[in-house]
This record gives sequence, structure tokens and C-alpha cells, in this order.
Amino acid sequence: MRGRSGPFWDGVEGRAPLPRAAATLGFEFVDADPDAGTIEVAFTATEDFVNPMGNVLGAFVAAMLYDTVGPALLATLEPDEFQTTLGINVSFLRPVRPGRLVGRGRVVHRDGDLVFLEAALAAPDEPVIATATATARVIPLSRAPAAA
Amino acid sequence: MRGRSGPFWDGVEGRAPLPRAAATLGFEFVDADPDAGTIEVAFTATEDFVNPMGNVLGAFVAAMLYDTVGPALLATLEPDEFQTTLGINVSFLRPVRPGRLVGRGRVVHRDGDLVFLEAALAAPDEPVIATATATARVIPLSRAPAAA
Repeated sequence: MRGRSGPFWDGVEGRAPLPRAAATLGFEFVDADPDAGTIEVAFTATEDFVNPMGNVLGAFVAAMLYDTVGPALLATLEPDEFQTTLGINVSFLRPVRPGRLVGRGRVVHRDGDLVFLEAALAAPDEPVIATATATARVIPLSRAPAAA
Repeated sequence: MRGRSGPFWDGVEGRAPLPRAAATLGFEFVDADPDAGTIEVAFTATEDFVNPMGNVLGAFVAAMLYDTVGPALLATLEPDEFQTTLGINVSFLRPVRPGRLVGRGRVVHRDGDLVFLEAALAAPDEPVIATATATARVIPLSRAPAAA
């Protein structure tokens, strides 16, 4: 098992503050298996995220899936590595009301510095609200200031 | 030119509150040409949206592009119509710091109730931060409660 160090684990394990964007989404780390490339995280969708009908706007569903695939990869990296997401493709399957949502992400395949990822978002009463596939590039931590 | 009425124009023109999710993203309506299917909107990316390096997390870039393609379509609809986004595909080209970002969206093609959309997000000093394509479905306003 890889050591749990570096900027991702520092944030998850409380040695560094959670990134502001993650805090805004109500991000919580639940569990990860870096060897399997899987992660489970959770978010709190608040009334600040709703459309005029009171459903969580897909914009925030997409944001949560982005913040699921990224951590799935980050959890597998060495302490001196970081990642930048190149693209994400989100499918919106069902509407969802505010509340706690669970994101499950997975590293599908890594080929050198390029990585293929996938994730799904679940509500308590609905196993799949939305799904995503994404591509990302592993970069040296020193180049992280250029990462989106 | 179509009449500027219905839930989208009510929000844009102050007859109804801006949707909560839009307000969270600092959404502003700038201009639209419903006949051409084009729209320009703006967002305010705050420090609440940043990654550990101080760049706007791609999650929020994706959210802003979602909230550009949706309005591009909404601006063209009849007062008794609404839309639901089926999927969005976002490419992250460059990092961006917090500040005012401009989204330009366009209805590429409408075939019955299915619509193809595209958008790009710009910073003051950078014409293209990220791009998106999306598909959406036009639905009766009465079915909007089921819309993501």
C-alpha cells in the first residue's frame, strides 16, 4: 500500500486545510483503496445549489463528479505528484434534491502520465443520479500552480 | 423577435429572483440574441472556488459552462417551455485565477425537442479558459420539476 502523504492526504487527514472549492461543495473523504484505484467521497448539496424548481442544478452535480474523479487519481499518486483534469463528460440521469450525495470514483486505466477515470453520484434513495468519465494528466507537484 | 417572458426572462429581468445556483456562481446576464441562439453571461469566481494552488477548480469552471449552455437555450424558448440538460462535455484548456469570467454560449442545432449546444469561458486576459459541448431536451414547463 502506498504511503498516505502528499497534498491530497494532508487535506484528507487534517494536516492541511481542505481546499476551498472542496469545502464549498461540502466535500468529505469517506474511503479509498489506492491499490484498486477506487475512492468514495461525499458532498452536501445545499439550497445554494438549486434551480428554480428546487432540484440541485446539474452545474453542481458536474462539479461534484469533477471532485470525485480528481481525488480518485490523487489518492494513488506519489507525494511529489499532482494531477490536472483535461476533460470531463457528464451524463445527467435523474434530478436530485439537496442533501448528502455520495461520489464513487475509479481509475480505469493509467498509461504513463495520462489517466482515464470514471465516477457516479448517488443519493440516499437513488443509486445513480449522474455519471462521468474524465481524462487527466499526472504532473510533478512543482507544476501544480498551472493546474486547473 | 420572441417575447421576453417565461421563467428565464423573469429571472434575468428581475421579475423573479435569480435561481439560487446561479447566484452562487455570481451569474450575470449580459446579452442574448435569441434569434441567433447566442448568449453572453458572466460569473464571479471567488476564493470559495479555488484549488490548493489558488486556481479556480475545474469543477466550478464546468459549473459555469453548464450555466452558460442552459441559458443559451432557455433564452430561445417559449414561456411554457423549459429545458433539461442531458449531458455536458468540458475541456479544460488553461488555469484561471478568481475574478470575473465571461461565458459565451450558442445553440448549434435544434432537432425537435433535442438541442445541441456549445460554450466557451473567457478571462479578462485569456480568451479561452475552457470549452463545452452539451445536449439538452426541451420540455413543457409543467414537467420542469423533474429537470436537473
